[in-house]
Amino acid sequence: MASDIEIAQQAKMQRISQVVSKLGIPEDAIEPYGHYKAKVSLEYLNSLKDRPDGKLILVTAISPTPAGEGKTTTTVGLGDALNRIGKKTMICLREPSLGPVFGVKGGAAGGGYAQIVPMEDINLHFTGDFHAIGAAHNLLSALIDNHINHGNELRIDPRLIQWKRVVDMNDRALRKITIGLGGTANGFVREDGYDIVVASEVMAILCLANSMTDLKERLGRIIIGYTLGDKKPVYASDLKAQGAMATLLKDAIKPNIVQTLENNPAIIHGGPFANIAHGCNSVSATRAGLKMADYVVTEAGFGADLGAEKFIDIKCRMAGLKPSAVVLVATIRALKFHGGVKKEDLNQENLDALSKGIVNIERHLKNITEHYGLPCVVSVNHFTFDTDAEIALLKGRIEALGGKFVIARHWANGGAGAEELARMVADICDNAPGQHKFVYDENAPLQDKITAIATKIYGAGEVTFSDAARKQLESWNADYGRFPVCMAKTQMSFSADPNAKGAPSGHKLNVREVRLANGAGFVVAICGDMMTMPGLPKVPASEKIDIDEHGKVSGLF
Amino acid sequence: MASDIEIAQQAKMQRISQVVSKLGIPEDAIEPYGHYKAKVSLEYLNSLKDRPDGKLILVTAISPTPAGEGKTTTTVGLGDALNRIGKKTMICLREPSLGPVFGVKGGAAGGGYAQIVPMEDINLHFTGDFHAIGAAHNLLSALIDNHINHGNELRIDPRLIQWKRVVDMNDRALRKITIGLGGTANGFVREDGYDIVVASEVMAILCLANSMTDLKERLGRIIIGYTLGDKKPVYASDLKAQGAMATLLKDAIKPNIVQTLENNPAIIHGGPFANIAHGCNSVSATRAGLKMADYVVTEAGFGADLGAEKFIDIKCRMAGLKPSAVVLVATIRALKFHGGVKKEDLNQENLDALSKGIVNIERHLKNITEHYGLPCVVSVNHFTFDTDAEIALLKGRIEALGGKFVIARHWANGGAGAEELARMVADICDNAPGQHKFVYDENAPLQDKITAIATKIYGAGEVTFSDAARKQLESWNADYGRFPVCMAKTQMSFSADPNAKGAPSGHKLNVREVRLANGAGFVVAICGDMMTMPGLPKVPASEKIDIDEHGKVSGLF
Repeated sequence: MASDIEIAQQAKMQRISQVVSKLGIPEDAIEPYGHYKAKVSLEYLNSLKDRPDGKLILVTAISPTPAGEGKTTTTVGLGDALNRIGKKTMICLREPSLGPVFGVKGGAAGGGYAQIVPMEDINLHFTGDFHAIGAAHNLLSALIDNHINHGNELRIDPRLIQWKRVVDMNDRALRKITIGLGGTANGFVREDGYDIVVASEVMAILCLANSMTDLKERLGRIIIGYTLGDKKPVYASDLKAQGAMATLLKDAIKPNIVQTLENNPAIIHGGPFANIAHGCNSVSATRAGLKMADYVVTEAGFGADLGAEKFIDIKCRMAGLKPSAVVLVATIRALKFHGGVKKEDLNQENLDALSKGIVNIERHLKNITEHYGLPCVVSVNHFTFDTDAEIALLKGRIEALGGKFVIARHWANGGAGAEELARMVADICDNAPGQHKFVYDENAPLQDKITAIATKIYGAGEVTFSDAARKQLESWNADYGRFPVCMAKTQMSFSADPNAKGAPSGHKLNVREVRLANGAGFVVAICGDMMTMPGLPKVPASEKIDIDEHGKVSGLF
Repeated sequence: MASDIEIAQQAKMQRISQVVSKLGIPEDAIEPYGHYKAKVSLEYLNSLKDRPDGKLILVTAISPTPAGEGKTTTTVGLGDALNRIGKKTMICLREPSLGPVFGVKGGAAGGGYAQIVPMEDINLHFTGDFHAIGAAHNLLSALIDNHINHGNELRIDPRLIQWKRVVDMNDRALRKITIGLGGTANGFVREDGYDIVVASEVMAILCLANSMTDLKERLGRIIIGYTLGDKKPVYASDLKAQGAMATLLKDAIKPNIVQTLENNPAIIHGGPFANIAHGCNSVSATRAGLKMADYVVTEAGFGADLGAEKFIDIKCRMAGLKPSAVVLVATIRALKFHGGVKKEDLNQENLDALSKGIVNIERHLKNITEHYGLPCVVSVNHFTFDTDAEIALLKGRIEALGGKFVIARHWANGGAGAEELARMVADICDNAPGQHKFVYDENAPLQDKITAIATKIYGAGEVTFSDAARKQLESWNADYGRFPVCMAKTQMSFSADPNAKGAPSGHKLNVREVRLANGAGFVVAICGDMMTMPGLPKVPASEKIDIDEHGKVSGLF
């Protein structure tokens, strides 16, 4: 079979104006970026505000493994399939980060015959949103050091500055740096560091903002550090930064539209980290999709314990979204990995290991139906070496829990391979949509929110807090107690131990550190190490990436 | 009178497809970025390659002063005026840098009624070119430290790395930094620093490249540093970086088209520093203009001693361009400043000071006609407090040297205010175009090239070299002797002393340091201090920049 980029480059793309016209969107409603990308104008979106919303479908997955589950391909395949069976559907995805493209990851716009195109553009600069977010972030950074340099009227404690700098590149050498060296002309020396752009609070803010005014207010509320001595918070608004930062985001706030290989419209917009942030595409994009289409298929980062929980408790809560159904993606391979099979042996039938590994998907399924309150279809991405016996085993266990089960073949067959899935999902949306529940009440103290997630969703027996984390949370309850919590833990396990596969129970979850994302409006609880600036491998993917005289790109995969 | 941004926002912009259609450019030839910006497709430009070139007109200026001369407004006004008198004309300008917008500088797309629009977009991210250049630059930076981290097979000496990092922000705290702190996971500690994006060699390369293949080869030739011990150059190609870097530049290489307030097409593309680089818009943009229009008006950075010299000796030499005429811009105010008047007294008539200051423009005029071999029109941007006596004095002195003289009023009146200038320029182009000369022969040794520029153009009596610079130049003559030299000295004076106004003669020029821009293909000779990362002022312009709920930007000026 052809590689992803070969398939993408063979796609018969339609002009983006033609693609959106299928949804009845007038040409004037979009601002083209080349012939195959566009932004949706805010005026047009405002004009739709009284239109009823479409149905919202969340695609999530089992706990990720190195085998790969295929959540994005399912999102794309399901979207294409719904359109094939006559349902006016829009896909909503996150934008890929540029840095990892040069590392090991490759592209992130689906795969096989379930892709979004133009894949080179989507994986490179796309419409410039992430660069704009980086510029807005780094403007605030420059304003902080500039303020200190010119007399530090606000008495910012240079040792307590929390606002780092960002770049959309995997660059480990920038994780911890010293700045301001070289004498008086260059300001004051202090420790600093770089995060990758997707880890910026500006990214989380852009993705949660309801309007330009809300965006500006959130930017102004960012806490950049604390004052000398009395440790009072210093806000971005104290540096009068929010207007210029929002101005830098004037186009980034508009949702981007591209198309699937089958020429159906897809929104790709925003991409906050799924650990220290909430890991969903922007609220504005989801809202736009719901106004423009009858069905919206979206995804959340990592597994259903992390991404789906944040989707419900942070995004849906803040934006008032009402999902109708959930698709839970798995592969037989990945479940065997959860059952203890080594990566190199995953292509061989192993019913024992599969049986053991199924506990992972059972836990996720139970969480979705019981704790999130939503009907769920388990969709298994088919591999040619999946055996009938393995499929029957999995199907039996899922159906025993009352779950719906389907094998999907969109990777090989495009939307046609996911029509059965599409019919099941549409049937739920049309006839038995769910009514989502939150895992915790917004008025509960912050510690209780964390405990609720850990015990209900992760199956933890106990939650412990470092002294610093406990004190911080207690002190925040008064002012920020209504914030949701954003859990930052490994995505590889229900526990904080990435090696604990399957469905560990009764484990202890330790909250090592907490951070306040005051602009985004949530408290981050960090369990274990969190990497916010990736590195490159010994042989980076960049070595293979090339472009010819006619502009044809190769080596992106 | 209204502010620049008010005038710009009141402009009746036409769709960019309509703007280019006036030049007979088909809609398919452009890739829109929103409705009012576009990139020209490379296929279309290739299809024009047998079409005869239009006439090329360079706009340059006297030695800059704090009074402001108005070179960009003249370029825009002349372009509009040529179109008004029936000449199919295209303007070619550099793209403004983002960082300075938040400092003191404000926008850089003309002023008054001679502007390019949409000014907010042009001054902010525009079509993303500078971000792409920054990403390509920083990818190479990340690959260097990654290579050292993973065993340093190339034996790069971490003390001799010349390739810094870049960001398009005025951020003095990043001028000198220490990276790689924090332990083994973060690589090896070393000194580093940030330049602003316009100072990146990738910027100079993009602006000089003839094709994608040439771009890639130039990127591969970048010298990032030297090996341990034997100090052999290490190239970007040793890190296999050039393919991925060129891929990141796949859209940035395409010229951007926007429009003037009078709906004439303007190309804005590339923006290398005018000190450590050559300070002209891209070769690809100028070439595109010459194929699409009968007249192209372009400008070069700083005064005619720097920008125009580099335009001729670097850009025209490398790209085989043949300028027909030069416009030399001045204001009576600025010439009085050169004559010793303080900034606050410039609005009062002062014939003595003007007479003294005129030596500056006389020297530039003589350089242009004698050393660059080109016919020249002196165009004076009119201010209401210029007196008849002052104008008569200046006119007399210019005409005594055989120069043409005109007062231009495009700032207040748009293209209509520059019609006389347009007729003079068109007459030269059509009836007596010049034949440019180079200041030095490409086969002369590097030191002689520098001496030729200093003695002929700057009026220096002697050129001295630091020991290090002399040794370096001597060692480079064998391999890089054919490179042109790029002079980095203050733009405020013919000498290296910014306070030496007028037309100093017989001064000594000291070359403190030389740098090899092997990818760009020139040797930089640094005379005096060079700032490649600006800082922000105590009250940054960012504090006034704002955006309202409907996306309307204010405070950009």
